[in-house]
Amino acid sequence: MEKYSQSQIDDVLTSLTEWSLQDEKWIVRKFRFQAYMDGIQFVNQVADLAERMNHHPMIAIDFKMVSIRLTSWKSAGITDLDIEQARGIDKLFTKNTIQS
Amino acid sequence: MEKYSQSQIDDVLTSLTEWSLQDEKWIVRKFRFQAYMDGIQFVNQVADLAERMNHHPMIAIDFKMVSIRLTSWKSAGITDLDIEQARGIDKLFTKNTIQS
Repeated sequence: MEKYSQSQIDDVLTSLTEWSLQDEKWIVRKFRFQAYMDGIQFVNQVADLAERMNHHPMIAIDFKMVSIRLTSWKSAGITDLDIEQARGIDKLFTKNTIQS
Repeated sequence: MEKYSQSQIDDVLTSLTEWSLQDEKWIVRKFRFQAYMDGIQFVNQVADLAERMNHHPMIAIDFKMVSIRLTSWKSAGITDLDIEQARGIDKLFTKNTIQS
């Protein structure tokens, strides 16, 4: 899978407004939760999505804040897979936020 | 709760052989799993323990490797609470490893 050029990344991030580029090869977003276990539940949903897609983001849990970092190792950059997953993760977060 | 002195930390880490001191105020351990979802299951168990103790470690999930970092913010260092939690986390990991 081909990695995005810098201008492709800039372009796609205009529709992923909460995500930002880090070190040229990661896209990152932080998610804040009202309760610790809400964040843990979200991590479980992200993990299920990761397994379904066979594409596993870096996840950090710092109390009620969950940080997600995405990259495509094989392509040494951002690919369609990362963008698809970022959109999926955004949907999970929106769903959680509406439910709670 | 009083924070440990450097010599107290050195002493207690002789019985927590997989943990090491980082930046003078964290104790850290990395846990490796055969499968991604085994790591996620472990994170859930650690989160339950964290809620029970009302003491929440930093958790990082990098594919099949889970890293845990413990500190006591209020004491600006390592306290009994971190050591108790580290022992609890070690027990959870041992239980998981035996089960799988």
